[in-house]
Amino acid sequence: MTTPLNERRIANAIRVLAMDAVQQANSGHPGAPMGMADIADVVWREFLNHNPTNPQWANRDRFVLSNGHGSMLQYALLHLTGYELSLDDLKQFRQLHSKTPGHPELGYAPGVETTTGPLGQGIANAVGFALAEKTLAAQFNKDDFKVVDHYTYAFLGDGCLMEGISHEVCSLAGTLGLGKLVAYYDDNGISIDGEVEGWFSDDTEKRFHAYGWQVLHVDGHNQAAIRQATLEAKQETQKPTLIVCKTVIGLGSPNKQGKESSHGAPLGTDEITLTREALGWAETEAFVIPEDIYAAWDAKEKGQQTEAAWNVVFAKYEAKYPTEAAELLRRLHGDLPESFVAQADAFIAETVEKAESIASRKASQNTLQAFGPKLPELLGGSADLAGSNLTLWKGCEGVQDNPAGNYVYYGVREFGMTAIANGVALHGGFVPYVATFLMFMEYARNAVRMSALMKQRVIHVYTHDSIGLGEDGPTHQPIEQIASLRNTPNLNTWRPADTVETAVAWKSSLLRKNGPSALILSRQNLPFQTRTAAQIENVAKGGYVLAEEKGPLKAIVIATGSEIDIAMQAHAQLDGVRVVSMPCAEVFMQQDAAYREAVLPAQIRARVAVEAAHADYWWKFVGLDGKVIGMTTYGESAPAKALFEHFGITVNAVVEAVKGFNA
Amino acid sequence: MTTPLNERRIANAIRVLAMDAVQQANSGHPGAPMGMADIADVVWREFLNHNPTNPQWANRDRFVLSNGHGSMLQYALLHLTGYELSLDDLKQFRQLHSKTPGHPELGYAPGVETTTGPLGQGIANAVGFALAEKTLAAQFNKDDFKVVDHYTYAFLGDGCLMEGISHEVCSLAGTLGLGKLVAYYDDNGISIDGEVEGWFSDDTEKRFHAYGWQVLHVDGHNQAAIRQATLEAKQETQKPTLIVCKTVIGLGSPNKQGKESSHGAPLGTDEITLTREALGWAETEAFVIPEDIYAAWDAKEKGQQTEAAWNVVFAKYEAKYPTEAAELLRRLHGDLPESFVAQADAFIAETVEKAESIASRKASQNTLQAFGPKLPELLGGSADLAGSNLTLWKGCEGVQDNPAGNYVYYGVREFGMTAIANGVALHGGFVPYVATFLMFMEYARNAVRMSALMKQRVIHVYTHDSIGLGEDGPTHQPIEQIASLRNTPNLNTWRPADTVETAVAWKSSLLRKNGPSALILSRQNLPFQTRTAAQIENVAKGGYVLAEEKGPLKAIVIATGSEIDIAMQAHAQLDGVRVVSMPCAEVFMQQDAAYREAVLPAQIRARVAVEAAHADYWWKFVGLDGKVIGMTTYGESAPAKALFEHFGITVNAVVEAVKGFNA
Repeated sequence: MTTPLNERRIANAIRVLAMDAVQQANSGHPGAPMGMADIADVVWREFLNHNPTNPQWANRDRFVLSNGHGSMLQYALLHLTGYELSLDDLKQFRQLHSKTPGHPELGYAPGVETTTGPLGQGIANAVGFALAEKTLAAQFNKDDFKVVDHYTYAFLGDGCLMEGISHEVCSLAGTLGLGKLVAYYDDNGISIDGEVEGWFSDDTEKRFHAYGWQVLHVDGHNQAAIRQATLEAKQETQKPTLIVCKTVIGLGSPNKQGKESSHGAPLGTDEITLTREALGWAETEAFVIPEDIYAAWDAKEKGQQTEAAWNVVFAKYEAKYPTEAAELLRRLHGDLPESFVAQADAFIAETVEKAESIASRKASQNTLQAFGPKLPELLGGSADLAGSNLTLWKGCEGVQDNPAGNYVYYGVREFGMTAIANGVALHGGFVPYVATFLMFMEYARNAVRMSALMKQRVIHVYTHDSIGLGEDGPTHQPIEQIASLRNTPNLNTWRPADTVETAVAWKSSLLRKNGPSALILSRQNLPFQTRTAAQIENVAKGGYVLAEEKGPLKAIVIATGSEIDIAMQAHAQLDGVRVVSMPCAEVFMQQDAAYREAVLPAQIRARVAVEAAHADYWWKFVGLDGKVIGMTTYGESAPAKALFEHFGITVNAVVEAVKGFNA
Repeated sequence: MTTPLNERRIANAIRVLAMDAVQQANSGHPGAPMGMADIADVVWREFLNHNPTNPQWANRDRFVLSNGHGSMLQYALLHLTGYELSLDDLKQFRQLHSKTPGHPELGYAPGVETTTGPLGQGIANAVGFALAEKTLAAQFNKDDFKVVDHYTYAFLGDGCLMEGISHEVCSLAGTLGLGKLVAYYDDNGISIDGEVEGWFSDDTEKRFHAYGWQVLHVDGHNQAAIRQATLEAKQETQKPTLIVCKTVIGLGSPNKQGKESSHGAPLGTDEITLTREALGWAETEAFVIPEDIYAAWDAKEKGQQTEAAWNVVFAKYEAKYPTEAAELLRRLHGDLPESFVAQADAFIAETVEKAESIASRKASQNTLQAFGPKLPELLGGSADLAGSNLTLWKGCEGVQDNPAGNYVYYGVREFGMTAIANGVALHGGFVPYVATFLMFMEYARNAVRMSALMKQRVIHVYTHDSIGLGEDGPTHQPIEQIASLRNTPNLNTWRPADTVETAVAWKSSLLRKNGPSALILSRQNLPFQTRTAAQIENVAKGGYVLAEEKGPLKAIVIATGSEIDIAMQAHAQLDGVRVVSMPCAEVFMQQDAAYREAVLPAQIRARVAVEAAHADYWWKFVGLDGKVIGMTTYGESAPAKALFEHFGITVNAVVEAVKGFNA
């Protein structure tokens, strides 16, 4: 430490705000903000290009606090540099309706680029930001204009580095050569269980060298060293950089610094008094920051100048390359091309005409082939299952080979892939879609949830959707996974029954700007269903009557995906039975009551749901008097046909169930 | 390759069986078995201590095929060495009711130690086997008797190494110094998307050195080198060893070796003919293995001798240390001490007497404190949240400090922890319990499922179970997670309401030999509920009437955990309303129809379920005429009390819902 602690007044402002806000909330994490304050001071005041008066400025550097429990670090930085985040907001830390929730949440405080807290996902989002920047730059920059040109800075802790996802994303970041990613590792030697050496003894430098990163070491309280390392990081354009910062957690607290006790609880008023003394902080009242400190932090004017300079460059770019400029703006706004809806509808009409009976994963690929050439914002990918998920279309080029490409070979990294895609969506300029087998959605599960919590347009493509995948057996056959997705707030889960429903599901997912969608697709062929124009219209409503009842309505069969065929065959044998196709139950539930009642009349209690997935989801629709033909056990390894028979998901079972209502 | 391919008849038997079985099934993965046949030949014929005539022999070496899609490698080895796995069984590869499912499944073919297929989890299980061996050895071996003394051999592929879980478990294995773990990496440079260099360019040696492993390199077709490396691995007693084996996927297939086309599809009959020629395999008919080859593989006699020699040692150990021997046998059988039930019941009676209103996580710790000293088989742990999950009791000692300890500081590694615990349970001798926040169960989700698929007694402790955790906000507040656990076949999910239900949940979970349990516990205090002796008895039935209706039964309120208090307060204000506590819906559904009808009479349709978790699970119990007071959105960051008000999970909401039935 070159400067005595009590002379670092600028950085100490962070320490004071963090301990005061945590004390006021009587909950929170002062240790990380106090330990990383000196690093933050250098990064935010000397390097970060941002404009507090316009947090949405497209070419800003992105900052990610992967150790999100240290949220007060970020809030203090946003407040001090001039974002619309007042002292009153800081005083409301962790309170209902405040802008300052316990962890940084997208959409609450301005300047928060992503929601962090679930460890390891922040650095994964940061990899996504850096990937998006590199790809967008390659697609739009010209030799004379670098309109996309920013860095991604991430802070992370040992928790992030222990999590498996850090391996997945840092390995891939090295392979992709994301040279504009700079990560600061808060190497304080402390985790919640105490000193980490008993459970975390990695040689992190060696590990990151194995990934192809540049690794630098600094004393995290030596600002000259941090400055120098950051300069070196920026000079290295081919490799991401990890700056390992030796820090003291809770630095400044005489009795708690360097200990777990400063990590996740208020310091206490007595200790805060002692800490103020140690910091040489004259102001004894909580939340008071001297004007000269505010002035030192204020980034508003510099930020406006930086953005203004970029605006000049962009105006020149726009003059010389009007098409590219318009396209870049369109994509940054997240608007699809104006012609998209008409083109999508034309393709849907084409699928009706072709009437193909193919696997829905193949129908999905055909849809991508139709939509892809019109949607340069698509950034596809699969976790090493491109040929099985059918996520490649003819216009796909891997970003590994062509930096301006539109496809990422993610390797066998489901969780990392999904969290990277969240970062790509958050960056703007892209609509990412990612794919794996539905079962291995579980590896990525919490990142799927994060895409929904953050309301990001990420399209999750999940093939091999049931026992219908056959011989690979119970480890690969989803049972409870579809229900888990449907129960995820803000996520639309589509399980289309044929080519038409698949195309509608893609269209709907692409048009949904404020949330992710999951497409649940079959490995096996699914028969084409004939529909009227009105029925085709209704697919987008999530649930609709696919086959009207013959005679008065007596019973309803609800099905999705591959089981629509079973329902339709049963329908052919039964009078008074209606088949409802429910490709997206969440969208159906958003329809008005009249529509829902028209599809599922309340007085009809003879209801059978049939789906080769966990039965329990469907009680919501069939009630205590209804029946569900589905799975309640794990699958088996056998050809698909044998499995449907074995587990009783058959036409006959549906027929018997309906007949049973009359018994 | 020192020996020409066509002279390696012993190893070629694997290649032939693999390609024949995949061809016969018309699905499967010949590439890995053909590529790893030479390694398998050395490991299985020269090193692996096992007894094909007694696959359950306690001191056998454990073998794990982490790249489980290469299942025919393992089936071929089991068949050739003399396990009860016939040629007919191999011919039934991937067929219904066969012993040879598409991936190795526990309980199908004898000699399969764990179910593999979900990539990375096999090596995690192997770490669990090695940890169990080391811990059990430290607990039971004497200077003069090493009754627990075996190796764990694992095969893995690049898919396993790309998965994040491989980072978590290999890092921990290095820290724990699991010197008897030997892993063979099938470094064939090919994954499903093609040549891996575009998405997997790790320097794996450097990476594993960073973890503290010994790393050796061999030509995976040079048996002398494999032999030498294995010897070196066994000599290194302090570090696990990774043997990086350069191999050719599908070796022997003239047109497909070294290519992705040999990975996951039959070679085709023409290519099989060509391969037979290249292998110098005279037998042209499928599945024919010459007698001399069988003789070379046969491990029955050697295995019986090996076990017999161990039995002699064990008999001497038993003579000298009868208590330890009896205890070791008890634990290997998975039997709890005979006195356990009585002791557990005494503790439950004590909780009734104490009538404490404490958090259920604290009640769980008290239960552990009571049961722990009687259960040396407990091997606890937490993913760096010991002080929050309250999984430490006074008798806990970390295995990091004391190899004979009973607690693992897993670090921030939820997925790795859970999959390691699966390996520990599979090994025998332990009842592992592992813990994290309920939300971060999602990081471990697929390993939780694997514990259930394999019917292993792993106890998953999940605290901070709802919005009741308060200020940490939506990233930490579970919503859809409990439903996802309840929908997992074979898993019992308990959400106890107070100290009594918590103690019963632990007792039930410990007694459940054939499956895992999840304990869903609160951060906040829960009021004690008064019960009759009959009610206490009924807690173990998963659901029971906690409060009888005043007057004729008109409505039922179903609740769990922290919402029991809300239900009981509503009950105090309402006539004709019964409160049903449902700590474990899965166990309740296993009760006979009469009991279920007595608790939830079918004709009572005025039903309200209240739970601070996703509402949709409860429609199964309340039906189309019922109501659910629960969550359908994400939570918020605020003190718990404010959140329950904000989301309308209140006494008043229950009262109004019940009154609404009469309106």
